[in-house]
Amino acid sequence: MNGDHIILTKLTGSIYRSTQVYTNEVLKKYELGSGAYPYLLTLYHNDGINQNQISKELDVDKAMSARIIKKLITIGYVRKEADQEDSRACKLYLTDKAKSIIPAVKAELFHWNEIMTKSLSSEQKIELVNLLNIVLKDIKNYRNHQKVEG
Amino acid sequence: MNGDHIILTKLTGSIYRSTQVYTNEVLKKYELGSGAYPYLLTLYHNDGINQNQISKELDVDKAMSARIIKKLITIGYVRKEADQEDSRACKLYLTDKAKSIIPAVKAELFHWNEIMTKSLSSEQKIELVNLLNIVLKDIKNYRNHQKVEG
Repeated sequence: MNGDHIILTKLTGSIYRSTQVYTNEVLKKYELGSGAYPYLLTLYHNDGINQNQISKELDVDKAMSARIIKKLITIGYVRKEADQEDSRACKLYLTDKAKSIIPAVKAELFHWNEIMTKSLSSEQKIELVNLLNIVLKDIKNYRNHQKVEG
Repeated sequence: MNGDHIILTKLTGSIYRSTQVYTNEVLKKYELGSGAYPYLLTLYHNDGINQNQISKELDVDKAMSARIIKKLITIGYVRKEADQEDSRACKLYLTDKAKSIIPAVKAELFHWNEIMTKSLSSEQKIELVNLLNIVLKDIKNYRNHQKVEG
């Protein structure tokens, strides 16, 4: 058993941490950090989902999600509304302030993805996304299996 | 500009967060979290490097590194020694206690990498690692270029 067998963890970890460093820097002017912007993008595509759904979508634990959402509400990017169908849950919505910065946030991420894939051909980019999707599907299958066993 | 252009950030983020959840759980018995084990593995392969070198190797900022290393020293996994050549720096070494758990930590990570790549053929695994290495090289080139400009 040598380093080659755990290289996938190491590579995705390095890419993730570099992405954190980049996004923390370029999104500072919007008061957003690497942990917060995924919430805005997720709500942008799924307006009105609740806190549990967004935590699951982003693979973040509930306590961490609660902290980040509270901050996003304080900054004025997110608002909560009572869920008529489930009194324990709250639906989350983007404010107009958040919607107005989404194009700029997406442009920053687009630029970062261009930097990261500068040397890849179009075919290689498609292949990489395809392979990572298979990895993520394996992870989800494993988790679902764990839940059934647990 | 749509979601496809930022999907690499999203996929590597999801894989990283899933890895955090898994490693936090299986390494709890060693008092290690997802943020700490990479330090032990890096020192295992580079015993005697200093705090700045390990931060750079892992793409972690210096303040975060200082906190994690302090904790690893408290637990008894790492020891510091004055660097004879640079009085401001300290060299870091694994203790025997750390060395004794490395095989078990590696086995857990090996198992996780097996779970993640269950559906990939050997060729696909090699291709994925190859493509991610190209991405990481692009990131490093970008950073070095930034440093020269800054």
